[in-house]
Amino acid sequence: MDRQNLTLMTDLYELTMMQGYFAHKDRNETVIFDAFYRSNPCDGGYAISAGLEQVIQYIKELHFDDSDIAYLASLGIFRPDFLEYLKTFRFSGDIYAIPEGTVMFPREPIVKVIAPIMEAQLVETAILNIINHQSLIATKAARVCHAAKGDGIMEFGLRRAQGPDAGTYGARAAIIGGCIGTSNVLCGQLFDVPVKGTHAHSWIMSFPDEYTAFKTYADMYPGACILLVDTYDTLKSGVPNAIRVFTEMREAGIPLGFYGIRLDSGDLAYLSKKAREMLDAAGFQDAVISASNDLDEYLIDSLKAQGAAITSWGVGTNLITSKDNPSFGGVYKLAAIRGQDGQFIPKIKLSENSEKVTNPGDKKIYRIYEKESGKIKADLICLADEEYRETDDLELFDPQEPWKKTKMAGGTYRLRPLMEQIFKEGKCCYTSPKVMDIRAYCQRELATLWEESKRLVNPSQVYVDLSHRLYHTKIELLEQMSRG
Amino acid sequence: MDRQNLTLMTDLYELTMMQGYFAHKDRNETVIFDAFYRSNPCDGGYAISAGLEQVIQYIKELHFDDSDIAYLASLGIFRPDFLEYLKTFRFSGDIYAIPEGTVMFPREPIVKVIAPIMEAQLVETAILNIINHQSLIATKAARVCHAAKGDGIMEFGLRRAQGPDAGTYGARAAIIGGCIGTSNVLCGQLFDVPVKGTHAHSWIMSFPDEYTAFKTYADMYPGACILLVDTYDTLKSGVPNAIRVFTEMREAGIPLGFYGIRLDSGDLAYLSKKAREMLDAAGFQDAVISASNDLDEYLIDSLKAQGAAITSWGVGTNLITSKDNPSFGGVYKLAAIRGQDGQFIPKIKLSENSEKVTNPGDKKIYRIYEKESGKIKADLICLADEEYRETDDLELFDPQEPWKKTKMAGGTYRLRPLMEQIFKEGKCCYTSPKVMDIRAYCQRELATLWEESKRLVNPSQVYVDLSHRLYHTKIELLEQMSRG
Repeated sequence: MDRQNLTLMTDLYELTMMQGYFAHKDRNETVIFDAFYRSNPCDGGYAISAGLEQVIQYIKELHFDDSDIAYLASLGIFRPDFLEYLKTFRFSGDIYAIPEGTVMFPREPIVKVIAPIMEAQLVETAILNIINHQSLIATKAARVCHAAKGDGIMEFGLRRAQGPDAGTYGARAAIIGGCIGTSNVLCGQLFDVPVKGTHAHSWIMSFPDEYTAFKTYADMYPGACILLVDTYDTLKSGVPNAIRVFTEMREAGIPLGFYGIRLDSGDLAYLSKKAREMLDAAGFQDAVISASNDLDEYLIDSLKAQGAAITSWGVGTNLITSKDNPSFGGVYKLAAIRGQDGQFIPKIKLSENSEKVTNPGDKKIYRIYEKESGKIKADLICLADEEYRETDDLELFDPQEPWKKTKMAGGTYRLRPLMEQIFKEGKCCYTSPKVMDIRAYCQRELATLWEESKRLVNPSQVYVDLSHRLYHTKIELLEQMSRG
Repeated sequence: MDRQNLTLMTDLYELTMMQGYFAHKDRNETVIFDAFYRSNPCDGGYAISAGLEQVIQYIKELHFDDSDIAYLASLGIFRPDFLEYLKTFRFSGDIYAIPEGTVMFPREPIVKVIAPIMEAQLVETAILNIINHQSLIATKAARVCHAAKGDGIMEFGLRRAQGPDAGTYGARAAIIGGCIGTSNVLCGQLFDVPVKGTHAHSWIMSFPDEYTAFKTYADMYPGACILLVDTYDTLKSGVPNAIRVFTEMREAGIPLGFYGIRLDSGDLAYLSKKAREMLDAAGFQDAVISASNDLDEYLIDSLKAQGAAITSWGVGTNLITSKDNPSFGGVYKLAAIRGQDGQFIPKIKLSENSEKVTNPGDKKIYRIYEKESGKIKADLICLADEEYRETDDLELFDPQEPWKKTKMAGGTYRLRPLMEQIFKEGKCCYTSPKVMDIRAYCQRELATLWEESKRLVNPSQVYVDLSHRLYHTKIELLEQMSRG
């Protein structure tokens, strides 16, 4: 993806609609689209935003080259004047977004595009693809890391990822969400993140016996020697052979750095406790026991509860595919159209399901922190021209049940605008932080969530409220439409 | 992915193991690895192979460029002589594979790599990533198309795919599995497959009213006019406005080509039947009713059973992510090592779970068809030097329960070797067919399956038997190892 022009990575209907706008509307009509999602992945209490750096790259690169134009012409549905227009097409609008690594909640605009309608329409598919994918994996990683209670989680799902990008950008997102490293070397090269790994069963099998395989490995990598002990028999062969090798290293005066064993099959609770006893008895109290094998946040949580002696975890398939919830339902909806007077006219998308009715207008988000604890009290979506001040008293209400109100006295809370400007009139005005810096920021973000919202099962949901003005704008539009 | 060197898209342990082999083993020791899977996706009765074209591309491009070497050197774990060796590294081995679009079953080698151990080890991760992903989506697509009983299935999941490659190569695989087209324009450009699409809710919302939006669209695309009718109220507004536009086209003498409506929300069974009545009453019996909205094979099957009047289906998230089963469990296991005498010494990987014990040795697969029906009777995995003839009587037995035997008289069955040679001494000796030709081949392949094996729930499993020689080789190795 990195070196590829993704302009044609779009749904055909974006282009047929563009041609329709080109021919039948004011081409410069400016609109606002919001990308947002409706429910947290895995029935969780939050999501982590990710993918913005790749969205920026996509927007910067956006152009139709000659082969793209030739291909579109070959489809027989595009007219010469429209194809001619595409030759010089560039994105000229504004984009606002929630920075990567931020904790976010349903219905909040993650990305807001303000641009001529043809441009805003075209970019829908790629923005959703990138943000949906990376936010999904970052969120899943945060859940897995939460279950591990401070133990390191290694991402190593590349072989089961849904294609090369899913493996590489998925690993990027997993690190943003809290993983300490990935097995994916390409991800390490592209994003300067830690890569880790030792050996597979085939290493063991390619030597005459397990001891020789371990010994050879330890000779080569004495500083990072995690031996895979389950090829033949974990407790009868693997762990004793590992102990033999560690003992020889100790006797030869070779410093044992990061060393230990990896369990990859069987009952991880039982085997880890037995292996711990054996390692401890041999004087290797600081040997690490790492484990892998179809792990996810629920299994790690359960193993922790069972007292498994594992302090390092490798998570593959279930993280890199977010197996129990493999898609993030981000959508991209029209929120406003600029009228002849320059003012935005709010637009709303109806639905029989009231949760699916969109929030109209040009919006922004305030995060409200409880001053005392530093924890998130609620988020407030309001219109872009509304200003709130921390010194004022604040009344919040639940937009689904507006009679439920909460008052906060001025001075007891902190406000933070969540969205940042990313593009201004087609020029990027934002610098993406390094991935490891985003990871550190995400850790600080997660610390602002109450424990009850980080719970894996049935977490408390954080309130996302609407300002009075936004709420009334929405109600008014709904009433207008029901009057027909 | 297409224009990118994916050499570093590998797990770090492949490289640490390579360096180990480099330093401590005969570098030219030739080994055999098999990529295979253990159970069919979605508890189905088969899988469809896909991804080989991208594997070929990957192997052809395999090399470490200067920036790759510099990155690896920066990790501080690779020695100068090994890095020097990588500079001229190329794949020099043989590869055999099951062609794309082929029906396949658990435990069959999909890809067999015969190469010096360092090369065979390196390519593991990328081969699995590519084959696992595309085979998963091709299989899911075949299931969805089976449920649709001949109706066209459109793939349009790009926005919910796990990144750009998942959207693009996933769409490729979906077409191999039977979809008639994709919304993904990049996939159309790269693989010369049909791209389709009309308009979104935002199109309707950007016009003053629904009728004007429909009319404008119909004027532009009279030959492929599917109108999205659920923006405001499907039966009270959408369908009547569509009928008004179709009537005007008919009255103006504009030929109605492929035309109709798309339902994207609500009760699709009820709405499609009502819409059908309304369209028929207006004389539009040939108007197509297409539907979308979180569909999968089970929902389509249920809608068909309910008599829904839908004959064209758009499937997004659940197909492009294979939502209920988002990973294909392909693994890559050492099967043999060439001894000093040039003969391959079979290797076996033990497991407490007997289903997980690998099949050792240099193998190939025969597919056995019943001559009369042309349907698949069983598959037979045997050693590469075994030859079977259709004129001989054939005795098959179940490797899990070897006392269960089936005899087939010579002349009553047909044999077909399933694997083809793809690389010979590092040179590609195979030409990938065009995607639409692979799709046509896949349709013929699916026709060789009994209906009972294509059933969505609890299908009959096709027997994958072992030859007597392979079975005895396996038993002998197991006994050797248990003697220890």
